[in-house]
Amino acid sequence: MSSDPLIIFTPSGKRGRFPAGTPVLTAARQLGVDLDSVCGGRGICSKCQITPGYGEFSKHGVTVHDDALSEWNAVEQRYDDKRGLKPGRRLGCQATIQRDVVIDVPAESQVHKQVVRKRVEARDILVNPTIRLYYVEVEEPDMHEPSGDLERLCAALHEQWEVENAQADLHLLQTMQPILRKGDWKVTCAVDHGRDGDAPRIMHLWPGLYEDTIYGLAIDLGSTTIAAHLCDMRSGEVIASSGVMNPQIRFGEDLMSRVSYSMMNKGGSDEMTAAVREGMNTLFDVVAAEAGIDKGLIMDAVFVCNPVMHHLFLGVDPFELGQAPFALAASRALHLRARELDLKLHPSARVYLLPCIAGHVGADAAAVALSEAPDKSEDLVLVVDVGTNAEIMLGNKERVLACSSPTGPAFEGAQISAGQRAAPGAIERVEIDPVTKEPRFRVIGSDLWSDDPGFAEATAATGITGICGSGIIEAIAEMRLAGVLDASGLIGSAEQTGTDRCILDGRTNSYLLYDASAKGGPRITVTNPDIRAIQMAKAALYSGARLLMDKFGVDKVDRVVLAGAFGAHISPKHAMVLGMIPDAPLEKVTSAGNAAGTGARIALLNREARGEIEATVHRIHKVETAVEPRFQEHFVNASAIPNAVEPFPILNTVVDLPQVSFNTGGGDEASGGGRRRRRRG
Amino acid sequence: MSSDPLIIFTPSGKRGRFPAGTPVLTAARQLGVDLDSVCGGRGICSKCQITPGYGEFSKHGVTVHDDALSEWNAVEQRYDDKRGLKPGRRLGCQATIQRDVVIDVPAESQVHKQVVRKRVEARDILVNPTIRLYYVEVEEPDMHEPSGDLERLCAALHEQWEVENAQADLHLLQTMQPILRKGDWKVTCAVDHGRDGDAPRIMHLWPGLYEDTIYGLAIDLGSTTIAAHLCDMRSGEVIASSGVMNPQIRFGEDLMSRVSYSMMNKGGSDEMTAAVREGMNTLFDVVAAEAGIDKGLIMDAVFVCNPVMHHLFLGVDPFELGQAPFALAASRALHLRARELDLKLHPSARVYLLPCIAGHVGADAAAVALSEAPDKSEDLVLVVDVGTNAEIMLGNKERVLACSSPTGPAFEGAQISAGQRAAPGAIERVEIDPVTKEPRFRVIGSDLWSDDPGFAEATAATGITGICGSGIIEAIAEMRLAGVLDASGLIGSAEQTGTDRCILDGRTNSYLLYDASAKGGPRITVTNPDIRAIQMAKAALYSGARLLMDKFGVDKVDRVVLAGAFGAHISPKHAMVLGMIPDAPLEKVTSAGNAAGTGARIALLNREARGEIEATVHRIHKVETAVEPRFQEHFVNASAIPNAVEPFPILNTVVDLPQVSFNTGGGDEASGGGRRRRRRG
Repeated sequence: MSSDPLIIFTPSGKRGRFPAGTPVLTAARQLGVDLDSVCGGRGICSKCQITPGYGEFSKHGVTVHDDALSEWNAVEQRYDDKRGLKPGRRLGCQATIQRDVVIDVPAESQVHKQVVRKRVEARDILVNPTIRLYYVEVEEPDMHEPSGDLERLCAALHEQWEVENAQADLHLLQTMQPILRKGDWKVTCAVDHGRDGDAPRIMHLWPGLYEDTIYGLAIDLGSTTIAAHLCDMRSGEVIASSGVMNPQIRFGEDLMSRVSYSMMNKGGSDEMTAAVREGMNTLFDVVAAEAGIDKGLIMDAVFVCNPVMHHLFLGVDPFELGQAPFALAASRALHLRARELDLKLHPSARVYLLPCIAGHVGADAAAVALSEAPDKSEDLVLVVDVGTNAEIMLGNKERVLACSSPTGPAFEGAQISAGQRAAPGAIERVEIDPVTKEPRFRVIGSDLWSDDPGFAEATAATGITGICGSGIIEAIAEMRLAGVLDASGLIGSAEQTGTDRCILDGRTNSYLLYDASAKGGPRITVTNPDIRAIQMAKAALYSGARLLMDKFGVDKVDRVVLAGAFGAHISPKHAMVLGMIPDAPLEKVTSAGNAAGTGARIALLNREARGEIEATVHRIHKVETAVEPRFQEHFVNASAIPNAVEPFPILNTVVDLPQVSFNTGGGDEASGGGRRRRRRG
Repeated sequence: MSSDPLIIFTPSGKRGRFPAGTPVLTAARQLGVDLDSVCGGRGICSKCQITPGYGEFSKHGVTVHDDALSEWNAVEQRYDDKRGLKPGRRLGCQATIQRDVVIDVPAESQVHKQVVRKRVEARDILVNPTIRLYYVEVEEPDMHEPSGDLERLCAALHEQWEVENAQADLHLLQTMQPILRKGDWKVTCAVDHGRDGDAPRIMHLWPGLYEDTIYGLAIDLGSTTIAAHLCDMRSGEVIASSGVMNPQIRFGEDLMSRVSYSMMNKGGSDEMTAAVREGMNTLFDVVAAEAGIDKGLIMDAVFVCNPVMHHLFLGVDPFELGQAPFALAASRALHLRARELDLKLHPSARVYLLPCIAGHVGADAAAVALSEAPDKSEDLVLVVDVGTNAEIMLGNKERVLACSSPTGPAFEGAQISAGQRAAPGAIERVEIDPVTKEPRFRVIGSDLWSDDPGFAEATAATGITGICGSGIIEAIAEMRLAGVLDASGLIGSAEQTGTDRCILDGRTNSYLLYDASAKGGPRITVTNPDIRAIQMAKAALYSGARLLMDKFGVDKVDRVVLAGAFGAHISPKHAMVLGMIPDAPLEKVTSAGNAAGTGARIALLNREARGEIEATVHRIHKVETAVEPRFQEHFVNASAIPNAVEPFPILNTVVDLPQVSFNTGGGDEASGGGRRRRRRG
């Protein structure tokens, strides 16, 4: 045995001795080396390409001679003539081991490809989907040993791929017979492996060797927008992404107004279900057209969404989610068929919905947990998915807590006097000079600051139209840093602040950010009600996080991850000045981008990840903010900017917060007090 | 322990000692006594009623005293006041054991009721369906420990009924929440247990204790008619039966003409699929209306059919079944949803199709095997399902062989000059006096023979309209016995037979059975082409049976079972005179009635029976008659009446077959020879 040739695979480093004449693919399989093959070693799929290395490998202690592998054979020659093999490549199923050899498995020959995520702290995604392709050669029917075509197909899957006890979807039965004959009893099967313990199910057949790929969709079903990422299920790459507005918006802008719509209108829930499914189908058409693929090749789809969207999508009336105790119909992950949900994809396409964590913390939060993996973090991480509702998780590998907090739409530019959605022309960055109190800003669509030369020309096309969510946060934080806004949220008067930018606006003051009214353009101010709206939103966010810190028994977190599209544009410093998030080193506040969408993509591409997040969700402890007395207390404290009681020591090493107070009345809080006085009078 | 009271259950005879105070239901469960309970011992469902016996039980060696059970309690009193308990009855969950006692479990308190089959040799059906009802009390939602309603429902099923890992259909998710609340968290669940290894799936919920039943359908999908039996899934009883013509008849009378229709017409297969499914839905409406039940309570349906109907029903083009090697798309049993097949029953209703045995031996034959169980027979049994195709099985508990033989429609009265379907007015019984050669007969609708007084009056309403399948068999057999028909199938002339009943009819003779032409009525004869058609049909049937006997290595069978509606009306003696079936003692030739329909009903009512027939079908060895040279040889021999070479010794002890021959020409076979001569001329 020890005189058998040694084979060493790179990059895995796996090694073993095999009798001379063993195909490289066979050795790879026996050693558990990740070397692809769709045809099962028949020399036709070319997925098992390998690169032998020759010469001295002192690291491995072997010398590889020119005759280490069998000679180039006719199958390889035919493949090379037809398709072309890269120089130095061999087919792993054809080349046999003759002497000691070092074999490199190139990335494209690995079954479980890695999809590299750009962020440093994010793990790469291992491509290992639930639906796999197998090439099989099926026995022809024999009337003396009668058996169904399906039975012989399943026998082939068992014998040639160890896929046991395969079942078939009805659609397969209906289409199978001509395909088997067209392929002369050689076919490629798409098999859904489902959950552990489920019988594998054959979903589709192609005659002969199917050399193309199949597709899957990762869908982030939001209250406002539906975003779909179309993935190549072999490479794992996103090949097209698109989004549409959620057509349910016509029934209500926010979730609770949709819940009310269903309560007030008979059949309202069904109407909203039909609308969102129709919207999905439109989106699928768009994304398939963009990628130039046949929608019928989309065989799997993973959905993440908040609980109300989850129920409305499934056709479950969200009534119970509108009132305590916020009971979900089901919190588990759901395995369905696209057809059951009226989705027009492959006729047997699968649908997977991630589990929900609680009545307010949905599958979208589970997807964020899958992407950001707080349950695997060594240090204590706060993960915040900022949207109309903020989903907040705090934890480390010991335990994870989660809650949701009703931030409202202010962070998205709604309820803000000059607010608008993030689109060209919207102010997204703001700086205010602490001495002159003069602002400068940037708008979406240009990299120039407003005091840079050429700014007017650069923004002439879009104009300067309003302030988006990240812009209002920077504006308010900068106002606080420049001393034109006090901790209670009052804007000082021109006299108090020494700048004409502060102007009387009714009974309170506003800060003038941009004025083009002389030229018939807009006049963009930050008003006291704007401040109030952001105070409410950020207090909700902070007090949710703080409540989890209480429950965890900590006063600080090691790092903060901001998820969601909005989170990607927030400046950590400004968020912290505002007191949106707990005090932490600024470099420890990072953005995860659309973590929910990424989580959906992980669950789409990796079968094990589904079981993993289902188990994780069970371990996440949910905290219901609505009934926690401390939440109210934290909320009141967090209304101050940054906070009435929390010290923010790390922030204070970075910025100086002016100790100003513009409250001149008898009330403890200007505008509120003013309104109260008027009502009494 | 030995001082604990002894409890003895009847009729099972199971016994054991339990501590005083143990409820009877608990003791029954621990001993594995079949005592029903839907509410799980909460004293509300009343399914666990038992009858204690008092006094001396010398057989069991116990004396039961009046205080053997606890006293009648408040729960029993409440139930008795509300619904009334039969005298002597107690509730098994309330009455506790105090002293030695004998407890009778009445039939209606057994979970696994027996449905008694009327035939002596048939086993009773044990009622143990795949869908079962469970009453559960579900924990209310708690926002501090959030979980979905479904998760708490499943937990209750697990804790209260040991139903583990239950899943839910989408329809359940959509309807569950209001039902749980309406029932104040007490509900009855219908759970489908599917196959072994499948997760149980909750299909339906009722608020509170559901005291009614659910229904299932056993459907015999024939080429000509579709018959449905609606069963109460608790009692196992058939509560309504109905049939419709198969609407596919408009595409072709027999199977092969339907296969051709699908080959000749694009979309023809789909048209036939739609037609048969539509016919089913009509039938379901009829049968539900007849029983006066809500179609939505039909939750399971079992189908049996031949392979062509099987494929057309599923939406699989039957193309491959029209040509060798007759490859089925799938031969296994299929578990589907009614909705996938456009059947309008309960929204999640299950469909089960029995397995097919081969391309010509379908799920209907499997159902006959389930009902007649040749694989469990001690003696060698030949089971023949007579229809347009005859399915034939031969075997015993050692092994079973099966084949199908194309008998054609002659046995159903088609291709017969005076043939008609079995309906009032059709001649069904015939006797011919061997001396006078005069016939007498009976018609469907009257018990009188044609020479009985009052026959004319009794048949005045229906008339005498033709001959049905069983009538033609008796007529021909009687003609053979009376010496007016020879072994080759030739009818003698008036001179040869000495009766004017034999009349020249073209180039051959006919036998006049009934003549009302003087009164403007019909003239019913048995013609030589009629004899020819029956000879072909019976030869096909016999040679299939004989081929199986060859394969089995036997020359005779112990008994013959005739299945199918037609089989129920055949006279064993006449069938044997004709040589349709092998020689056997006449009392060993019995009818099984609609055995395929019975098999469907067994599979509907008993979950284990499904696994059993799936295993049995695997063990049945299929013989393809079309390619067996001996089949042709047997066929030629079997064309003679009863047979050119087989001796039929047992038959010869019962009847005398006249040694007559009416062949006067040079050909070896009169009419055939005659036709040949004409063609040559």
